[in-house]
Amino acid sequence: MDQDADKNTEAQIRRLISNWTGALHSRDVDALMAGCAPDFVSFDLAPPLRHDAADYREGLQQWFASFASPIVCDVSQLEITSADGVAFSRSLNRMTGKKTSGEEVDLWVRATICYRKIGGEWRVAHEHISVPFHMDGSFRAAVDLHP
Amino acid sequence: MDQDADKNTEAQIRRLISNWTGALHSRDVDALMAGCAPDFVSFDLAPPLRHDAADYREGLQQWFASFASPIVCDVSQLEITSADGVAFSRSLNRMTGKKTSGEEVDLWVRATICYRKIGGEWRVAHEHISVPFHMDGSFRAAVDLHP
Repeated sequence: MDQDADKNTEAQIRRLISNWTGALHSRDVDALMAGCAPDFVSFDLAPPLRHDAADYREGLQQWFASFASPIVCDVSQLEITSADGVAFSRSLNRMTGKKTSGEEVDLWVRATICYRKIGGEWRVAHEHISVPFHMDGSFRAAVDLHP
Repeated sequence: MDQDADKNTEAQIRRLISNWTGALHSRDVDALMAGCAPDFVSFDLAPPLRHDAADYREGLQQWFASFASPIVCDVSQLEITSADGVAFSRSLNRMTGKKTSGEEVDLWVRATICYRKIGGEWRVAHEHISVPFHMDGSFRAAVDLHP
């Protein structure tokens, strides 16, 4: 891929990520799902191991409803690698917000997003969002880390 | 990419994954790292959030030394998406083995692997391996799931 095409792809993928964080901020399920391929598969923070698009949408609705504030997602250390029609990105994202229970969320997660170009538009084909877990025998999710 | 090139790429990536599981089985750090790009970044099961190649190698040595048996990694539901020089795969992997402590490991993880072709060879540029965590307020890593 030549350098101009490369820059163009990267700009398009950055826009897709920015739409994604915008959809989190406004807790807009439709806006968020609009960026996903029909055969989208998510490996998400919550069980089960694997969510397809329909599961994911349902989980998202419940998760959004559990927040009393916008969900702020700050994307850092973003690296995008792309070729003609396939790309991936990785980043460390800080998610903050206030739950309806009053709990303040402040969580760093790892995000790997895999993209396919479909009908001329980049779409998220697969996402993998996680935290590691502590290897001290406690099996506690490491929700207390930061870069 | 034409269909033959596509099949060829898929075969090469399957071989890379097979070398990877072989290296886990024989607990061979060098064999495993041979499949990685120099700027490889891992989001792994253990903290911290992000490991570069040097960190990863060190963690791998410690982890391998904690096993009294081969580490068996069965890759299932593997899907590979590739273009000219960039690819990604996702799968659910079952890892089994016996630790030097006597503990039996039997763990399903999600694996997202991102590849770049470097000097004509496919290499792992990024991997993301995780389990979800339970959303019951316990923050327990969900090490008890299966597909």
